[in-house]
Amino acid sequence: MKSLIFITSIFTSVITINAQNYIGDKADIQQILANTAQFSKYIMASDYDQIANAYTKDGKIFPNNREIMEGHEAIRKYWVLPEGVSTSYHKVTPHEIRILGDYAHDHGIYEGKTKRADGSESSWKGKYVIVWQKVDGEWKMYLDIWNRIQ
Amino acid sequence: MKSLIFITSIFTSVITINAQNYIGDKADIQQILANTAQFSKYIMASDYDQIANAYTKDGKIFPNNREIMEGHEAIRKYWVLPEGVSTSYHKVTPHEIRILGDYAHDHGIYEGKTKRADGSESSWKGKYVIVWQKVDGEWKMYLDIWNRIQ
Repeated sequence: MKSLIFITSIFTSVITINAQNYIGDKADIQQILANTAQFSKYIMASDYDQIANAYTKDGKIFPNNREIMEGHEAIRKYWVLPEGVSTSYHKVTPHEIRILGDYAHDHGIYEGKTKRADGSESSWKGKYVIVWQKVDGEWKMYLDIWNRIQ
Repeated sequence: MKSLIFITSIFTSVITINAQNYIGDKADIQQILANTAQFSKYIMASDYDQIANAYTKDGKIFPNNREIMEGHEAIRKYWVLPEGVSTSYHKVTPHEIRILGDYAHDHGIYEGKTKRADGSESSWKGKYVIVWQKVDGEWKMYLDIWNRIQ
């Protein structure tokens, strides 16, 4: 039992930076943070295949005023923007990430800008909860729910 | 290691009823299901103290078009309805609950009816993700986020 506690304490660390709590194995936290930043890049590049692939095969998204959507095909379809429209800015700021074995929960703030065909931009900001799942060594989103702040 | 796997398999069970997945210790699942049903009763009774107490002390709610609200006082305040207004019906249907030690994640559907002072009612339906936390043997909501379906 003592050795188990010892092992746990080696691999578990709490890092607090600017009111952000990251609880769990450092490598796991770093992969989730890297995947979060990469997701924003995929959104800004309108790379819909990579956006879908950021979710588990049975991943679920919960967009406002819509049913729960499950799986890469449905998730990809949701994210596709109309012709000429793009996300010119996207940033996710996690407040807390807690690793629990092969799952993790994560909550925080997202913000972005939508650029329309006529060049005009509109800003938005919201909050989210994500449940991540580690599948074959890769952290992917299993549940992704959000709503607006403004 | 073998004995650990053995212990885990005794206490972990997967129950699937009508496409609902409950993964983890049966007693934990049952307490979360009971607390979920009880929460609906508190909502229908406008019992705001018990509603607030269904959350951890640092519990967070994520209502649409609002900032993240944290703690019993802020959460209680959010749930208080205007004079003469009540929730005449409230039901939560979890699709999946997964216990992960002292945490669990849960997602599904909620529905309800709001009754106004003039007696008229309006129905609503939405989807949610809850992260539960076991504090002193009691399952409480740590993160509660939802948005509408209709």
